[in-house]
Amino acid sequence: MDGIRIDKPREECGVFGIYSTDEALQAAHFTYLGLYALQHRGQESCGIAVGDGNTIRLHKGMGLVSEVFGGEQLRDLPGPHAVGHVRYSTTADERMVINAQPLLVECSFGRLALAHNGELTNARSLRRELMDQGSAFQTTTDSEVIINLIARHGRIPLEEALKRTYARLRGAFAVVGMTPDSMFGWRDPSGMRPLAMGRLRSDTYLFASETCALSNLGAEDIREIRPGEMVIITDKGPQSYQLAEESTQAFCVFEYIYFARPDSVLQGRNVHLVRKAIGRQLAIEQPAQADLVIAAPDSGTSAALGFAEQSGIPFEIGLVKNRYVGRTFIQPERSLRHLGVKIKFNPIDALLRGKRVIIIDDSIVRGTTSVKTVELLREAGAAEVMMYIASPPYIHPCYYGIDTPSPRELLANNKTVEEIRRYVGADKLAYLSMDGLMAAVGLPADKLCTACFTGSYPHPKEDK
Amino acid sequence: MDGIRIDKPREECGVFGIYSTDEALQAAHFTYLGLYALQHRGQESCGIAVGDGNTIRLHKGMGLVSEVFGGEQLRDLPGPHAVGHVRYSTTADERMVINAQPLLVECSFGRLALAHNGELTNARSLRRELMDQGSAFQTTTDSEVIINLIARHGRIPLEEALKRTYARLRGAFAVVGMTPDSMFGWRDPSGMRPLAMGRLRSDTYLFASETCALSNLGAEDIREIRPGEMVIITDKGPQSYQLAEESTQAFCVFEYIYFARPDSVLQGRNVHLVRKAIGRQLAIEQPAQADLVIAAPDSGTSAALGFAEQSGIPFEIGLVKNRYVGRTFIQPERSLRHLGVKIKFNPIDALLRGKRVIIIDDSIVRGTTSVKTVELLREAGAAEVMMYIASPPYIHPCYYGIDTPSPRELLANNKTVEEIRRYVGADKLAYLSMDGLMAAVGLPADKLCTACFTGSYPHPKEDK
Amino acid sequence: MDGIRIDKPREECGVFGIYSTDEALQAAHFTYLGLYALQHRGQESCGIAVGDGNTIRLHKGMGLVSEVFGGEQLRDLPGPHAVGHVRYSTTADERMVINAQPLLVECSFGRLALAHNGELTNARSLRRELMDQGSAFQTTTDSEVIINLIARHGRIPLEEALKRTYARLRGAFAVVGMTPDSMFGWRDPSGMRPLAMGRLRSDTYLFASETCALSNLGAEDIREIRPGEMVIITDKGPQSYQLAEESTQAFCVFEYIYFARPDSVLQGRNVHLVRKAIGRQLAIEQPAQADLVIAAPDSGTSAALGFAEQSGIPFEIGLVKNRYVGRTFIQPERSLRHLGVKIKFNPIDALLRGKRVIIIDDSIVRGTTSVKTVELLREAGAAEVMMYIASPPYIHPCYYGIDTPSPRELLANNKTVEEIRRYVGADKLAYLSMDGLMAAVGLPADKLCTACFTGSYPHPKEDK
Amino acid sequence: MDGIRIDKPREECGVFGIYSTDEALQAAHFTYLGLYALQHRGQESCGIAVGDGNTIRLHKGMGLVSEVFGGEQLRDLPGPHAVGHVRYSTTADERMVINAQPLLVECSFGRLALAHNGELTNARSLRRELMDQGSAFQTTTDSEVIINLIARHGRIPLEEALKRTYARLRGAFAVVGMTPDSMFGWRDPSGMRPLAMGRLRSDTYLFASETCALSNLGAEDIREIRPGEMVIITDKGPQSYQLAEESTQAFCVFEYIYFARPDSVLQGRNVHLVRKAIGRQLAIEQPAQADLVIAAPDSGTSAALGFAEQSGIPFEIGLVKNRYVGRTFIQPERSLRHLGVKIKFNPIDALLRGKRVIIIDDSIVRGTTSVKTVELLREAGAAEVMMYIASPPYIHPCYYGIDTPSPRELLANNKTVEEIRRYVGADKLAYLSMDGLMAAVGLPADKLCTACFTGSYPHPKEDK
Repeated sequence: MDGIRIDKPREECGVFGIYSTDEALQAAHFTYLGLYALQHRGQESCGIAVGDGNTIRLHKGMGLVSEVFGGEQLRDLPGPHAVGHVRYSTTADERMVINAQPLLVECSFGRLALAHNGELTNARSLRRELMDQGSAFQTTTDSEVIINLIARHGRIPLEEALKRTYARLRGAFAVVGMTPDSMFGWRDPSGMRPLAMGRLRSDTYLFASETCALSNLGAEDIREIRPGEMVIITDKGPQSYQLAEESTQAFCVFEYIYFARPDSVLQGRNVHLVRKAIGRQLAIEQPAQADLVIAAPDSGTSAALGFAEQSGIPFEIGLVKNRYVGRTFIQPERSLRHLGVKIKFNPIDALLRGKRVIIIDDSIVRGTTSVKTVELLREAGAAEVMMYIASPPYIHPCYYGIDTPSPRELLANNKTVEEIRRYVGADKLAYLSMDGLMAAVGLPADKLCTACFTGSYPHPKEDK
Repeated sequence: MDGIRIDKPREECGVFGIYSTDEALQAAHFTYLGLYALQHRGQESCGIAVGDGNTIRLHKGMGLVSEVFGGEQLRDLPGPHAVGHVRYSTTADERMVINAQPLLVECSFGRLALAHNGELTNARSLRRELMDQGSAFQTTTDSEVIINLIARHGRIPLEEALKRTYARLRGAFAVVGMTPDSMFGWRDPSGMRPLAMGRLRSDTYLFASETCALSNLGAEDIREIRPGEMVIITDKGPQSYQLAEESTQAFCVFEYIYFARPDSVLQGRNVHLVRKAIGRQLAIEQPAQADLVIAAPDSGTSAALGFAEQSGIPFEIGLVKNRYVGRTFIQPERSLRHLGVKIKFNPIDALLRGKRVIIIDDSIVRGTTSVKTVELLREAGAAEVMMYIASPPYIHPCYYGIDTPSPRELLANNKTVEEIRRYVGADKLAYLSMDGLMAAVGLPADKLCTACFTGSYPHPKEDK
Repeated sequence: MDGIRIDKPREECGVFGIYSTDEALQAAHFTYLGLYALQHRGQESCGIAVGDGNTIRLHKGMGLVSEVFGGEQLRDLPGPHAVGHVRYSTTADERMVINAQPLLVECSFGRLALAHNGELTNARSLRRELMDQGSAFQTTTDSEVIINLIARHGRIPLEEALKRTYARLRGAFAVVGMTPDSMFGWRDPSGMRPLAMGRLRSDTYLFASETCALSNLGAEDIREIRPGEMVIITDKGPQSYQLAEESTQAFCVFEYIYFARPDSVLQGRNVHLVRKAIGRQLAIEQPAQADLVIAAPDSGTSAALGFAEQSGIPFEIGLVKNRYVGRTFIQPERSLRHLGVKIKFNPIDALLRGKRVIIIDDSIVRGTTSVKTVELLREAGAAEVMMYIASPPYIHPCYYGIDTPSPRELLANNKTVEEIRRYVGADKLAYLSMDGLMAAVGLPADKLCTACFTGSYPHPKEDK
Repeated sequence: MDGIRIDKPREECGVFGIYSTDEALQAAHFTYLGLYALQHRGQESCGIAVGDGNTIRLHKGMGLVSEVFGGEQLRDLPGPHAVGHVRYSTTADERMVINAQPLLVECSFGRLALAHNGELTNARSLRRELMDQGSAFQTTTDSEVIINLIARHGRIPLEEALKRTYARLRGAFAVVGMTPDSMFGWRDPSGMRPLAMGRLRSDTYLFASETCALSNLGAEDIREIRPGEMVIITDKGPQSYQLAEESTQAFCVFEYIYFARPDSVLQGRNVHLVRKAIGRQLAIEQPAQADLVIAAPDSGTSAALGFAEQSGIPFEIGLVKNRYVGRTFIQPERSLRHLGVKIKFNPIDALLRGKRVIIIDDSIVRGTTSVKTVELLREAGAAEVMMYIASPPYIHPCYYGIDTPSPRELLANNKTVEEIRRYVGADKLAYLSMDGLMAAVGLPADKLCTACFTGSYPHPKEDK
């Protein structure tokens, strides 16, 4: 079915929220645009829940935002408050519309909708505890665990119930939830997954996993939700609560390396510029003799530009990407299968022939695409193919909301750099050092989660 | 959208279950056929949950059984146990796939699926109670109320939890539920909604709202679940529990008049033969001078045959029904709108011209179709049009799972018989008497729910 | 795919046309309703071409009228003139939207649309002749042959071109064609396939394969197009031309027996009444001792009513048809396959048990359904099953637009009546005589095509 | 519907062909991949016709290649020869599946399929001539004109018929056609539209509008079909015929500027390298003081790289494109409409703030997008916005197969460069000179069609 598999870790979700006191504001349209900007964080399902002060309506479905929502669906979701979600799911079982988010329930607090990005490390034990207390789960999502926890606290004010629920959660979570007339945003105590907020005019507040979904709507006063912070928005405006100490911050470094859109700003740092700094650092660490620097499309481009600037080796477009490669590509018959990678991107022979080529990729996970890319460049006549990776070797799986293959499938988990070089067939293979990565990102190592490189997990996996 | 509205009360659901100890039996295929036979009880959504001993899988969707299920969907549901459901929903809000049944959850008892026909009169108070205890509802169905009640009893055996849950329910309910390796059927203490069971070979048991879905699969030993009875089926076979006294039986008389398929057997009485008896009784009560007896297609046919036999007036086919009238018929432009009823059925002028015609319909609800039918027969040249109704005036709305219009829209709630006659434009209008109906059905009046005719509701509507 | 095959000959097409001088009339809506009434003549594809005086627009697709056309499609077809078509196609190759009709072309006469019912016996030789002259065919339809013949006559008035084209055609054809501002109807010299016309108000004329599509729109002055007649309608009104002698009329008798809707009038005879007369004749020819007369659903009902009236044996509903049996029914797994016929219709055991039953069917073609029906009645407890066929043995395939199996598959082509009886398993099998059929239809034998019974084809099959 | 209109001329078609003597080769799969690579030349409809030696089968539909073709469609098209087509259509009338290509007919030569890129300048007169001779057109495509011309020559060998037909055509055309056992490719005498061929192994020949669809399949011996050349391929191999003098070549220069994929080779020149040369030339002609050079995504990237190299001003990624912008984007509500361009691409403020920015675009047609892009850069804080266009002013519409707006809508048709600068709001606006363009492309001006810039049309528009 999926003829062209992308050999990258996959982000599982993006969240969006909007709350306005302008009753005429069509929150569904804003959320549609917001999710559009976050589409790279999940392409399998999406949904929008909209509140109008009295009730909450929901539409969700399988597919891209542009496939699930048309004019009619947006018209059927009136109201000035909304929560939206895009999702990538990892298993076939989970590829069901019932697992799409936001989740909407009626409970003692009335209607409640919630969207979640991340992964709870104690989801299983919380789920067991809730089932023991009588909960019946209809989905396999962490969102349903969270929302059931909230619903348990029926006899106290919502604000208090949110605090108590927050206190029970472990692991990575960025949450936006709503009642018909209020909205809240949570970021986990370690701030592992990103979540930002902004203001539009004087009457409207926005939440989004990435700032690109705020800036493209013209939002101002954009700031990140702090680790451990809860922001509640009502008609009286936003109110902030610090629910956990900030000291333990462990922001996912892979957001800088691969997940986030280049125009987003994370922790005050523009992603494109961080990637350029990474490329520059790589050029410093790994000096090279080459004729050209090219990027593995599209994820290596920013780093390649930085590398070129630092090294003085010209940046070039050596591989042309087919803009129309989609999700439903038919697997070619066997004799054509080796062509897969040429369908996805095709080399410019006239440029590569006889040249010593450095190709910059953000990471190697399984290595399958890398093998084919090197082969492709050689066939195009490259005299030398040097693969430079804009991050350290990817060794350990993620437990915080990123879909990664099992350790057995992680190339660097099983092989030395030299073995990997031989496997991918490059003349040279160079990784960025951990120190270099830290320097380029410009944040202290203890503020970042680098577990995929170091195996040093900031939170234990509580249950299996 | 729906150019040709059917002016009848609407059944809200049909349920089906199958449990086999033959592991090779494809329960999904049987359930597909069973739901096909029950399709007249609900055309808006349907679903099948299949258990294989270890887990339960579910597929459901909007539309007819033949639209929601294809070969692929059935293949993806392996296992020898299944529960199925067809549904007609009353409000736009409820027309969402999330409200389709069966409902499948994971709870302290493991996976649990459940399908329900009827309407709880205490659904709202149970829901409130459950929310107070921390439940979060994702649908507006009674099934979710029932399944949450079951899940609350987490620390006792399932059988005991089922009994305690059953004891909390009020109103009309026929339920089939399952775990991965057991199945249960419930009928409410008054036996308001129908539910039967049967056996196939020595290893397979079936449940169905109507016997037509059992007999067409070749089932034997078909019997009704008794009012107040719970049947649990495991690999050891079926076991019956009488959970409530049978004395209060109040079976819906409208199943005989309109809902059930003519080939079904209810309370030991074949529906077609009951309808013929009703027609005969109508001919005795309301003697007539006429040239022809015709049926309002299709629901009046059995009664018309009985009427013709009793009265000696020939039975004829005066109105030909278009077999292809479906749900998506486009509303004609205004100038064509009066043609609607001719699109649905067209008179045979050569037969009707100059004739005194008795047309038998099962009931009049809003009366909109009756007006057009009389007009149609007159245009076709009928000398006289006498409308005979095979039931008493329909005066009161139903609270037990049947979708009826509000009292204001119920023609007989506001008008005398003579006023109705003038409204529909017939030369004569005759209803069956209550006593006549009872005589024709052949059951004592205190065994039937006749609230729609008498206003005597066997169960109070506990909440609003 | 098609789990429940209907063992009947299949009509290949229905045509409809409307021409109004009222520019505001939305011909597409009328045609939609007209095709709805003709849906029984073809369920595989349909189309509507609408002229507005200047141009012709077309929409067509695979499926029922209600599936292919929605409000949007009708809105996109403005204008007061239209031609419509419903089609059943015989081979997989022909199941392509390109073969759907009407066919719309631009030629020397400008835009021209045409819809056809029937089968040309010289289609192949005409096609070859046209290809030799340079025509390039995009479809396999006779319509394209006809329209290319018309287009060949580019330098003469359209009326003259139509006459010359008509003169070249052999076999069975009922055609409605149009230019942006005129319409024409043709019926072949033998009048084999039906075609009628009518008038609506003073400004609108209608064509239809059957009168049911005219009467349900309220048309008046309904008459058949005569064999050999061409009617041309322009803003000046209709004009009739007799293009061939009427003497050779050979109207398809099977329209009376099975194809036409009971409410249609053919050759001045209402179809339902003809079928009743056939049933009466059958009772005269084949006296019987029985308790009940039932119909094979649905096609035997009219004849069964006539049989019951004549014989005095009560008419009953012994088999209940599932109203929801559709085209996409999934083939049950092998062990369930014998249930197929019970899914389609289910017996009423309480009625049949111990009874001597006469079942009336319109015809036996392959006999597959008959075998299962007899089995079904026996299983339901019938003491005797007598099958009475409301037509003579069906022995010969049709070359005039009806899809029939090959002679090898035609049961009566290979077997005596006694052999057929044994094959279907009935206690008695009785066919109507040819003379009895003629008497019941009430037309001289030389006015009817009875080739399927007699092998006496009115027109040779010119090419193969 | 189409919220984000792309303000570029639009290519109307791409063609592909494959002919193999290896009977096991699945030509449909190769064609699927070939059309995938040509998808940028047309996204509205596509089709594949496959020949197996005896017959030709066709599947076509509206949408992208990945939407129209799945595994089932490809399996249903067996055979080792195929012709494929992708299409962009200009008018609503033409947005019908019947106009999708290839066109498949049966004529005196048997089955014939044909796909066409370009526009005949004498299509209308040929069509009239053919209609006068009796042809009836079902589509509005030039392909149907060509195929009817071929079919007219029924009594001579196909090769001769192809030559005579070729001789009648004027304007721009690149054609691939096939019979069940042969294939032919044509390029018009001026070679206006591109067409190349290649060889795969020893037994398979390929045609494609662009070489990217050959090289990504691993083809060798890739060469362009010469202006005026016809290549016929049979089981004996390819044979070439020069049907017209080559002297008049007039290859579309806009293929270099915008249409072709960067990895294609046209006239021996790699498109990306030509675009870089154009960018370099622009830097020479229009020296600039700036901090950054950025590209208008995506079409200006190659030229921007060249400009940066020549000028020494750093190349940057100033605008990030949303990879998921598709065809069905919902128009935002009015208050959000100005955001459209931010949805399509979002600026990196951190990079642009306070900078003097040169933005390189390939051309300005209507100018609507340019206005918004300049605005966007200013909002992002750019100190100066200089727009450099990598071609001369686009003044004249194309008659050779490219969809361009009417002269009235062509910005440069009505305005001076200074007026355009004010209109788009840039601080500076610079176009490339015609001489500079010629120098960069590296072909003599008389080998290229530059009508859109100069108004000097190589072929008159013969009919209107």
